[in-house]
Amino acid sequence: MTTKTKQNWKARLHEIIYEADTPLGKAFDIGLFIIIILSVILVMLESVKSLDAKYHDLLLIFEWIITIMFTIEYIARIITIKKPLNYIFSFYGVIDFLSTIPLYLSYIFAGSQVLLAVRAFRLLRIFRILKLVKFIGEASQLSSALKASRTKIAVFIYVVLILSVIMGTIMYLIESDEAGFTSIPRSIYWTIVTLTTVGYGDIAPQTNLGQFIATVIMILGYGIIAVPTGIVTVEFSKANKKNKSSDNIPTNYVHVNTQCCPNCSREGHRDDATHCYNCGHQL
Amino acid sequence: MTTKTKQNWKARLHEIIYEADTPLGKAFDIGLFIIIILSVILVMLESVKSLDAKYHDLLLIFEWIITIMFTIEYIARIITIKKPLNYIFSFYGVIDFLSTIPLYLSYIFAGSQVLLAVRAFRLLRIFRILKLVKFIGEASQLSSALKASRTKIAVFIYVVLILSVIMGTIMYLIESDEAGFTSIPRSIYWTIVTLTTVGYGDIAPQTNLGQFIATVIMILGYGIIAVPTGIVTVEFSKANKKNKSSDNIPTNYVHVNTQCCPNCSREGHRDDATHCYNCGHQL
Amino acid sequence: MTTKTKQNWKARLHEIIYEADTPLGKAFDIGLFIIIILSVILVMLESVKSLDAKYHDLLLIFEWIITIMFTIEYIARIITIKKPLNYIFSFYGVIDFLSTIPLYLSYIFAGSQVLLAVRAFRLLRIFRILKLVKFIGEASQLSSALKASRTKIAVFIYVVLILSVIMGTIMYLIESDEAGFTSIPRSIYWTIVTLTTVGYGDIAPQTNLGQFIATVIMILGYGIIAVPTGIVTVEFSKANKKNKSSDNIPTNYVHVNTQCCPNCSREGHRDDATHCYNCGHQL
Amino acid sequence: MTTKTKQNWKARLHEIIYEADTPLGKAFDIGLFIIIILSVILVMLESVKSLDAKYHDLLLIFEWIITIMFTIEYIARIITIKKPLNYIFSFYGVIDFLSTIPLYLSYIFAGSQVLLAVRAFRLLRIFRILKLVKFIGEASQLSSALKASRTKIAVFIYVVLILSVIMGTIMYLIESDEAGFTSIPRSIYWTIVTLTTVGYGDIAPQTNLGQFIATVIMILGYGIIAVPTGIVTVEFSKANKKNKSSDNIPTNYVHVNTQCCPNCSREGHRDDATHCYNCGHQL
Repeated sequence: MTTKTKQNWKARLHEIIYEADTPLGKAFDIGLFIIIILSVILVMLESVKSLDAKYHDLLLIFEWIITIMFTIEYIARIITIKKPLNYIFSFYGVIDFLSTIPLYLSYIFAGSQVLLAVRAFRLLRIFRILKLVKFIGEASQLSSALKASRTKIAVFIYVVLILSVIMGTIMYLIESDEAGFTSIPRSIYWTIVTLTTVGYGDIAPQTNLGQFIATVIMILGYGIIAVPTGIVTVEFSKANKKNKSSDNIPTNYVHVNTQCCPNCSREGHRDDATHCYNCGHQL
Repeated sequence: MTTKTKQNWKARLHEIIYEADTPLGKAFDIGLFIIIILSVILVMLESVKSLDAKYHDLLLIFEWIITIMFTIEYIARIITIKKPLNYIFSFYGVIDFLSTIPLYLSYIFAGSQVLLAVRAFRLLRIFRILKLVKFIGEASQLSSALKASRTKIAVFIYVVLILSVIMGTIMYLIESDEAGFTSIPRSIYWTIVTLTTVGYGDIAPQTNLGQFIATVIMILGYGIIAVPTGIVTVEFSKANKKNKSSDNIPTNYVHVNTQCCPNCSREGHRDDATHCYNCGHQL
Repeated sequence: MTTKTKQNWKARLHEIIYEADTPLGKAFDIGLFIIIILSVILVMLESVKSLDAKYHDLLLIFEWIITIMFTIEYIARIITIKKPLNYIFSFYGVIDFLSTIPLYLSYIFAGSQVLLAVRAFRLLRIFRILKLVKFIGEASQLSSALKASRTKIAVFIYVVLILSVIMGTIMYLIESDEAGFTSIPRSIYWTIVTLTTVGYGDIAPQTNLGQFIATVIMILGYGIIAVPTGIVTVEFSKANKKNKSSDNIPTNYVHVNTQCCPNCSREGHRDDATHCYNCGHQL
Repeated sequence: MTTKTKQNWKARLHEIIYEADTPLGKAFDIGLFIIIILSVILVMLESVKSLDAKYHDLLLIFEWIITIMFTIEYIARIITIKKPLNYIFSFYGVIDFLSTIPLYLSYIFAGSQVLLAVRAFRLLRIFRILKLVKFIGEASQLSSALKASRTKIAVFIYVVLILSVIMGTIMYLIESDEAGFTSIPRSIYWTIVTLTTVGYGDIAPQTNLGQFIATVIMILGYGIIAVPTGIVTVEFSKANKKNKSSDNIPTNYVHVNTQCCPNCSREGHRDDATHCYNCGHQL
C-alpha cells in the first residue's frame, strides 16, 4: 500500500504543479509567478552598483532563497512526471534549469551571471496561468495572426536589410570618419537607426550630400513602416473574422481542456476523456 | 414662500452649473472652460523662472483670483446638488477639489504645488461641454473601440515588457558602464527607448556586438509597432460598421438627452421625460 | 473693332493663364511650375552663407528676374479676369501676391524675407496642373478621407495635448533643472518629443523615477500612434469602396470639366455648356 | 558532331546557370548566393580600418578569388545564352558586370570602390532562387500592392515635401545659427528629421517659439504617418481578397513554370510546353 500512497502523493503533486484547473494548482501557479517576478527584480537590484555595495550580503541571501526554491520546484517537476526527459528537454524545462543554476555555477566560473537573463523568460509562464481566462484566446489570436504574416514579414525584413547594406555602403563612401561613419558595418548600423526612425544622433551626417541621402532614407523609412503595419492589420482582420465564425462550431469539433497527461505531459484532451489520446495512459 | 424661492434659486443655479441645454448653462460651461485654460497657462508661466522673478506678485494675484473663482464654483456645485456626497466623491468632484486647494495648502506645506498638475485634468470637461455636438459621438466611438482592444493591447504590452527585460539584461552584460549601461534597470530603459523608436542617444551602444543587437531590437521595434496598430484598426473598423447600422434605429429605441436629474445627477432621460428614470424625482 | 480685338486678346490670354485644357495653357502651367521650383531653390541658395558671400550679385540678379516674371504674371492674371477682386482675395491670389513682393519690400523694411517662405505654397499649383491626369482623383480621395476623419483626429490630438500637459507638469516636478526640465512649457515640449517617438535627447531624464515615467510615456506613445492610423485606415477603406461604386454613375450625373468662367472664375461646367452655370456669362 | 556536343554542353550549362528547376541548377543558385553573401561581407570587413591594417593581404587574396569567380560566372552567362545583349543590358546583367569590375578598375582609377556597393544588389537574386517556393507569391503580392498605391504615396510625399520646405524656411527665420539652423536646406533637413520622428538631436530648437513650432511639426508627423499606413493597408486588403479568389482558378488558366527559353530567356511556359511561346525555339 506504500507504493500506492506514494503514487497518490505523486499524482496529487503532479496535479498541483502541472495543472491549473484545481484551486491548489492555481494557487501554486500564482505563487510561483510572484517568486519569478521577485527573482527578476532581484537580478535587477544586484546590477545597481550603489545598492550592491550597501546590501551585498542581504541580496545574496535572497538570491540563495530563490535559488533553493527554484531547485526544489525543478526537482519536484522531475520526480512527479512519468517521463522526466520530455520535461527536461522541453522549452520550459531548459528555461527552468538555466534559471536555477547561475548561483551554483558562480562558485565554479566567473561570468555565469549571464544566465540570470534567462530568468526573464520564465515570465512567459503567465500565459499558462492565464490559460484559464480569456487572455489566452486573445494571445493565441495575436500569435496565429503573426504566424500567418511570417513569410511576408520575412520578405519585408530581407528587402529592408539589402536596402540598409546598399545605403550604408553609399553613406560610408560619402561621409568622413569624423562624422562617425568609420566603417561599412557602422554605416549600416546608422542606416538602420535612421530607417527605423530611432535616430540616436551618436552618428549623424555632416556633408550636404550625406544629409540629402539621410533625408531620402528617412522618408523611405517613414513609408516603409506602413508595410508591416498593413500586413499585420490584414491578418488581424482575417483572424478576427475567423474568430467570429467559430461561434457556430461544426458538430465534429469538441472542446479540449488544459489537463496534462501524467505520463507524456500532452495537453488538449476532450473534456470527457479518461485516457490520453497520445499514449493511452489513464488521466 | 421663502423656502420655495430659495428652492427655485437653487434649482435654477443647478440647471446653469450642471446642465448644458440652456443658453445660460452653455455660457457658464464655456466661461468655466476658458478660466480652466487660463489657470493651466498660469501654472505654466509660474514655472518659467525668468517670468516668475519679474512678475511674481502679479502672477500670485491672478492665482488668487482663479483660486477664489474655483472655490466659489466648488461651493456652488455642492450646495445646488441634492446629494453632495455623490458629487464630492465622483471623478470630477475630486479633480475640482484638488484644483482648488493648492494655494491654500501652500501656506501650510511646501511642495503642495504638485497638485497644480491636477488642474490639467479639468480640461477633460470640454467633453461635457461638447456633449451637445457631434464630438461626443466620435469620442465615445474612439473610446469604445479602445476598450474592446484592451485585452489584446495588455497581452502585447506584457510581451514587449518581457522582451525589454531580456534584451536589457543582455545589453547590460555586453556593454560597459562608459556607454551608459550602468545597471540592468538603466539598460531596460535604453531597450524601451530603442524599441519604441524614441532613441534619445543619451545611452548608445559602443561595441560591435552591442550595436548588432541594437539593430535587431530596432527592427523588432519597427515590426512590433504594427501590432497595436493592427489591433486598433480592426476594432475601429468594427466600431465603424456598428455605427453605420445604428442609422436605422429600431422603433423600440428612443432619443435621450444630457439633462441631469437635480436629485441624483443621473443623465440620459427621454426627451419627453418629466421624472427621473432612476430616482423618480421631478425633472 | 479694336475693342473686339483687345477683347479677343484678353480672352485668349485668360484661356492660357487660367485654363489647362489647351496645349498652350498646359505649356504655360508647366513653365510656370518650373519657374516656381527655381524660385524656391533660389531662396534656399541665398540662405547658404558661403554661397551668398561668393555669388551675392548673381543670386540677386536671378532674384530680380524671378520677381519681374512673377510681377508680369500677377498683372496678367488681374487684367485678363473680369472680376479681379475674386482672384486677388482668393487663396492662390494672396499667395501669388506675397510671393512677388519680398524683393520690393526689402528696399523698404528689413526682415521682409519672411515672405519668401510663402513661395513654397505656390508649389501646390502642381495639383491644378495635374488636374488633367489621374493624380487629382487620388489627391481628392486622400483629402476627402482625411476630411472625414477630421473630428476624430481633433478629439485624439486634444486628448494627447491634455496628456502632455499632465505628464509634462509631473516631469517638471520630478526632474531637476540640470536635466533640462527648467520650466513646465519645456517639460511639455520634452513630453511631446517623447510621446511622438521623436526623441532628440537634448533634454533627457536623469533620475530613476523620471526614467521610469519616461518609459511609461514612450510605451503610451507607441500605443497611441495606432489611433490616428486606425482612424485614417478605416476612412481610406470607406473612401475606396465609395470610389469603386462610382464606376456605375447614375444617369442623372454628368461629367464636368476644368474650364474657368472668364467672368467669375467658377469651374465645373458641363462639357456641353455654353454659359456659366453661376453667372450666366458666355464661356 | 563536335558542334552538336558543344551545343549540348552549352545547353546543359544554360540550364544550370539560368534555371532553378533541376537539382544542379538549384545547387548552382544556392552556391552563387553564398558567394554573393561572402563578397558583401568581404567588402564590409575591408572597410574596418583595424582589420584592413592587420589582414590587408589576406583580404586582397579573397577579393581576387571572388572577383575571378564572378568573372567566370559573367563570361559563362554570356556564352551560354543565345542573345547575349539581352542579358548584358538587363537589370541583373548590369549589376553582375558592375559587381565584377571594381578590383580591375582599382588598378586604373582610385575611388572605383564605389562600385562595391553595387554588389549588395546581387542579394536580390535570392528572389530568383526562392521562385520555387511560396516566398515569391508573397513578394509579388507585396510588390503589386505597393505598385497600386504608388500614385497615392507620390501625392503624399509631394505634400510632405512642400510642408517641409515651408516649415524649414519658417524655422530658419526663427532659430539662430547657434542652434544649427545655419541655412534653409539644413532647416529643411531638420524638419524632415523631426517630421519622420527620427530626431537625431544634432540640430534642436532653442527658442520658445522654435520649440512650439517643433511641437506642432511633431504632432503633424505623428498624424501624417497614418496616411501611408492607411493607403498600404487598404491596398494589401484588396490584394488579399484578390488572392483568395484566385484559389478557384477558372479552367481557361494553366500553371506556368520558371523554365527559361535557351534562345530568348523568356520564362512562364506551360508545364507541358515543348516550344517557347515567344520565339518558338525548342525548350
